[in-house]
Amino acid sequence: MAKLFLSLLTYLLLAGSILATRQASWQQGRCQISRINAEEPSYTLRSEGGLTEFWDHNSDEFRCAGGSLHRHRIQAKGLMLPAYHNAPVIAYVVKGRGIFGILLSGCPETFESSQQQESEEGRRERFRDRHQRIEHFKTGDIIAIPAGAAHWAYNTGDEELIVVALQHTDNAANQLDRNPRSFHLAGNPQQQQQQQGGRRQQEQHEQGNIFRGFDSRTLAQVFGVDEETAKSLQSENDDRGHIITVRQRLHVITPPLTREEYGRRGEEEDRPYNGLEETICSAKVRENIDRPSRADVYNPRAGRLTTVNSLTLPILSLLRLSAARGVLYRNAIKAPHWFVNAHSFLYITRGAARMQIVNHRGQAVFDGEVREGQAVVVPQNFAVVKRAGEQGCEWVEFNTNEQAMMNTLSGRTSALRGLPRDVIAAAYQISPEEAERLKFSREETLFFSAGERSQRGRVASA
Amino acid sequence: MAKLFLSLLTYLLLAGSILATRQASWQQGRCQISRINAEEPSYTLRSEGGLTEFWDHNSDEFRCAGGSLHRHRIQAKGLMLPAYHNAPVIAYVVKGRGIFGILLSGCPETFESSQQQESEEGRRERFRDRHQRIEHFKTGDIIAIPAGAAHWAYNTGDEELIVVALQHTDNAANQLDRNPRSFHLAGNPQQQQQQQGGRRQQEQHEQGNIFRGFDSRTLAQVFGVDEETAKSLQSENDDRGHIITVRQRLHVITPPLTREEYGRRGEEEDRPYNGLEETICSAKVRENIDRPSRADVYNPRAGRLTTVNSLTLPILSLLRLSAARGVLYRNAIKAPHWFVNAHSFLYITRGAARMQIVNHRGQAVFDGEVREGQAVVVPQNFAVVKRAGEQGCEWVEFNTNEQAMMNTLSGRTSALRGLPRDVIAAAYQISPEEAERLKFSREETLFFSAGERSQRGRVASA
Amino acid sequence: MAKLFLSLLTYLLLAGSILATRQASWQQGRCQISRINAEEPSYTLRSEGGLTEFWDHNSDEFRCAGGSLHRHRIQAKGLMLPAYHNAPVIAYVVKGRGIFGILLSGCPETFESSQQQESEEGRRERFRDRHQRIEHFKTGDIIAIPAGAAHWAYNTGDEELIVVALQHTDNAANQLDRNPRSFHLAGNPQQQQQQQGGRRQQEQHEQGNIFRGFDSRTLAQVFGVDEETAKSLQSENDDRGHIITVRQRLHVITPPLTREEYGRRGEEEDRPYNGLEETICSAKVRENIDRPSRADVYNPRAGRLTTVNSLTLPILSLLRLSAARGVLYRNAIKAPHWFVNAHSFLYITRGAARMQIVNHRGQAVFDGEVREGQAVVVPQNFAVVKRAGEQGCEWVEFNTNEQAMMNTLSGRTSALRGLPRDVIAAAYQISPEEAERLKFSREETLFFSAGERSQRGRVASA
Repeated sequence: MAKLFLSLLTYLLLAGSILATRQASWQQGRCQISRINAEEPSYTLRSEGGLTEFWDHNSDEFRCAGGSLHRHRIQAKGLMLPAYHNAPVIAYVVKGRGIFGILLSGCPETFESSQQQESEEGRRERFRDRHQRIEHFKTGDIIAIPAGAAHWAYNTGDEELIVVALQHTDNAANQLDRNPRSFHLAGNPQQQQQQQGGRRQQEQHEQGNIFRGFDSRTLAQVFGVDEETAKSLQSENDDRGHIITVRQRLHVITPPLTREEYGRRGEEEDRPYNGLEETICSAKVRENIDRPSRADVYNPRAGRLTTVNSLTLPILSLLRLSAARGVLYRNAIKAPHWFVNAHSFLYITRGAARMQIVNHRGQAVFDGEVREGQAVVVPQNFAVVKRAGEQGCEWVEFNTNEQAMMNTLSGRTSALRGLPRDVIAAAYQISPEEAERLKFSREETLFFSAGERSQRGRVASA
Repeated sequence: MAKLFLSLLTYLLLAGSILATRQASWQQGRCQISRINAEEPSYTLRSEGGLTEFWDHNSDEFRCAGGSLHRHRIQAKGLMLPAYHNAPVIAYVVKGRGIFGILLSGCPETFESSQQQESEEGRRERFRDRHQRIEHFKTGDIIAIPAGAAHWAYNTGDEELIVVALQHTDNAANQLDRNPRSFHLAGNPQQQQQQQGGRRQQEQHEQGNIFRGFDSRTLAQVFGVDEETAKSLQSENDDRGHIITVRQRLHVITPPLTREEYGRRGEEEDRPYNGLEETICSAKVRENIDRPSRADVYNPRAGRLTTVNSLTLPILSLLRLSAARGVLYRNAIKAPHWFVNAHSFLYITRGAARMQIVNHRGQAVFDGEVREGQAVVVPQNFAVVKRAGEQGCEWVEFNTNEQAMMNTLSGRTSALRGLPRDVIAAAYQISPEEAERLKFSREETLFFSAGERSQRGRVASA
Repeated sequence: MAKLFLSLLTYLLLAGSILATRQASWQQGRCQISRINAEEPSYTLRSEGGLTEFWDHNSDEFRCAGGSLHRHRIQAKGLMLPAYHNAPVIAYVVKGRGIFGILLSGCPETFESSQQQESEEGRRERFRDRHQRIEHFKTGDIIAIPAGAAHWAYNTGDEELIVVALQHTDNAANQLDRNPRSFHLAGNPQQQQQQQGGRRQQEQHEQGNIFRGFDSRTLAQVFGVDEETAKSLQSENDDRGHIITVRQRLHVITPPLTREEYGRRGEEEDRPYNGLEETICSAKVRENIDRPSRADVYNPRAGRLTTVNSLTLPILSLLRLSAARGVLYRNAIKAPHWFVNAHSFLYITRGAARMQIVNHRGQAVFDGEVREGQAVVVPQNFAVVKRAGEQGCEWVEFNTNEQAMMNTLSGRTSALRGLPRDVIAAAYQISPEEAERLKFSREETLFFSAGERSQRGRVASA
């Protein structure tokens, strides 16, 4: 079953790469990548209703892999103001719940109120608001945002909402340079850079309110309002930042949703889906990858992997990105492997793991522990192995191909398994019996349990 | 209707970007683009039958957007000699009429004479010429020329023929560097660079006659002619340049065409077209976008926009370019917007406009007037607003995506329209009533009339 | 017929380029390419069972065209150990025969032994090996290897096996920089660089055994073997290099194959093929282009050309590469032409030719002889003509587009043939009669015979 899945994954390479992710390679000098680090965010952008922490997109590995990683921490009642980016964004909800909207010019405002609305200030005269689709999201959701599409989010829960997101600037959708750019439709983001640790001065993730570049008279005219209202678009004296706190209740139109319903709704995502029934206006942009029952690879004694790619979430064809959620139990190992067609941005959501990443010279460019809250970049083709610590390890990974494909080095579906025994014996100068053991000892596929038994005999397969 | 069109445009993003324009981003240093200028051509290449004026492709904005813009001025009886380029070219006929041919090796010579031809020198012995398809073109035509395809043009009218063209070097079809290159099959283009204004010394658009690189004995052999004729291919002593004047009548085989017929032919372009019936040899490469009745967006009090993309002219899928023709009436405004997936090269064909272009920091990188004969580059994602002057404004724009998509900031299909009222109120710290006005005041879509009425109340929609 | 073929080639441009090869242009400085050389390999990597010679991938033309060329010389009983590369590889078997395997994780081990196997050491207990598909290959085969797919090869013949291969680093499949990288699964490749001639110090093609980057305890665990066996994966004290000699008979499972059967098998490759019946696991990766009967362009007095592209070998869609085999008879000429959408890497397998390569300035960047064992890069759009020497000339060319398309300058399907006679006369300032001769003298298509007759009259067409 797991093997079937991997075969499928493999097969998809053909289809997937034809329409494939095209990321221009980083050509200013070489991408030597002689050393990779487990990184934490290097600067913080604070605002009234929360903060955003940015990984240094100019570090060697992030620059070479062409991505910018950041983490939003949105407090209860925090509203992340609408903005769009110069590259597609794929996000994972680490904790919390909320609502979000993606604004696409020309798409209909399909959410509309048909009754009287009560505002805080009292009864209003049959005002009927209408706006584009709004979606609920919660822990474990992957959210896909196309390049150039404005979006906003609001924390509807009682606890902090934490979202980690990759902005993939080395993407076909970005025709300018590889610097991450964010265009805000509101607010006045100020970059109160806050160095964590004594690292070098770095360029910031640049962003601002685009209305400030227009003059207020023009804005008044194009919006058909008076100049004072137009000026409010520019948020000149607004020091709340890019995440604000909404003091009063935020009225938006959403389908009613109880806690149980929400849970059930999650299950309904498994409805048959043919990939043709959606337009960009009604495209599914969210998928939950936390439920164990959704796993694509599962070993009850070692862990599981849940992937989301352009087959399960078709809009990822447009983003040319995919993601996976991994869970490794205590001391379990994810088989050594390499990604054939993607870089992989790993973020640890819980626990810790020891990882080794090996380059084409056979050098370990990373050999160390990576802990909750840290991120590691695994460049395309580099070999990697991961062993969970005493607490196990959970992570999310963003991969720079809509159908990322990995090859394993050991286990039941590995490259070595595909080699004739005698080639193995000759290659490694070992006896045919040792070659057999190398090939066949590990019957598991991708996740290896920590038990001593498995080191010698055959173990139950994944 | 206009809304439906925009929805369609939006929807196409999905399909279009999957096969999407892949232009490598400019990676030598950053594309800061802290200042954009309304540019005029910076050097001129003169020849006997006309001249070509080049915009400086090394200026920041042209370099970052990866395109080279030029304008041909071909005099009556001027023949632009055959040449091919290292990148696809999309051209717009600003003025005049003529014929042109695109030469594709292996395509049949489908135009053939079946009767006696009369030459100027008297009756000839039943010579039957045959050659590849020739097309008529006139003011308002968009012409698409694939990378590496040789082409030529001839002014059949009595007045100057003016064509403005974009050579998109940052295109998937160009595998070498991003410098524009032109390979001439005839003539001896000399670059009599003529600085306009005191700007810095710049690199020229390099071009030459490729036959000069072969030795004449080889040419004699491969063409099966004597060496003297072969030498004429190299045009060594030819100082007429790349556009020559044909003193006598130029005999080519074309279907007969009266002025009225030509007009009617233009209408016939609207024939049903399924996109499958053409091969590269019979591909439609021309479409007129001047007729008001062809408009895609139309507001009788403000202006109109006519687009041509890979759906209406399928060969643009190959070029990964599209174009649009805009007309703004006196003082009318094109809604503030940004292009999601394309850079836009604007050329003003008549009148003038005041434009503001805003980057991701909220800075106006351009705020000024752009006049007839000038060009402006609007980088991907940058927000832009345009207001016509007292004489109105007409322009053509070349966009670096076969299905360029824009998002508007105000108007009936705008991003703000898609936001809930309360999000707007919270974001801009305004009252719900002001938020409503921001959302709903402008009922027009893309073109806003200048009337005072429209600043407050609802106006007739586009 | 040849014309039909060329028309077809031309037509494919449309389809092919939509899904087209996207290679980022080389953006560090300009690709001036003011001089191209006929190159021989510049360094050699020796090992026990053979050697690999590398062309200098940092020379101007190789760097600009984004490819690394190398030649394997594998002695009898030589086993090239499994490795994978950061870019797709297309190879041509110059001489010899052997077997090879491509390892794709998740693909089934479809070759399995069902009987007792006899090992050299005596009878073994019903061991049943199983491994992934193995293929035979021989002189004249093109082999396609996707980026990141591990592969190995073994010389089953009695003579040296010579394979020339292009690793196309400027390919959509490679997301890192443009340096060629090789990841070895076994062996200990040491780079005993051996300068040939006194050229500048250059960077080597970097490669190493990836198991050396993992610690042996981890390897022991993930393979389920003892640490000593695990250490053998790292090949620490193995000085045999990347090609080893297998002293004893190499037992692998392959379908029985006599010499005659092999011959017939080659013919069977012409079975109807619809391009849909294969998955990546069963994809056809090999095609013989040596048989004269397989020619696509053929002139009995001048030579032939056999192409293999994504239509005849669909996996080339994934690699975005194609290849051709050319044979020119004594003193015959290949028509002057340019590649519209590809760079071309030429390797001379027999004889010699005089080539001229012309850039956009009309300068001959190469004008000289290229001999057996040398390689020349013809950049996209550059015009080239080739005349065989006294011994004739045979070559293989690797083109950086899955459907490379050329335009000829002379001959029956040339660009000039498509021009009206009067345009030719005006362009080159010659009489209509001379223009006719330029257009119509050469009736051959792509290969021109050397005979004097053909210089004047009409000759039999190709």
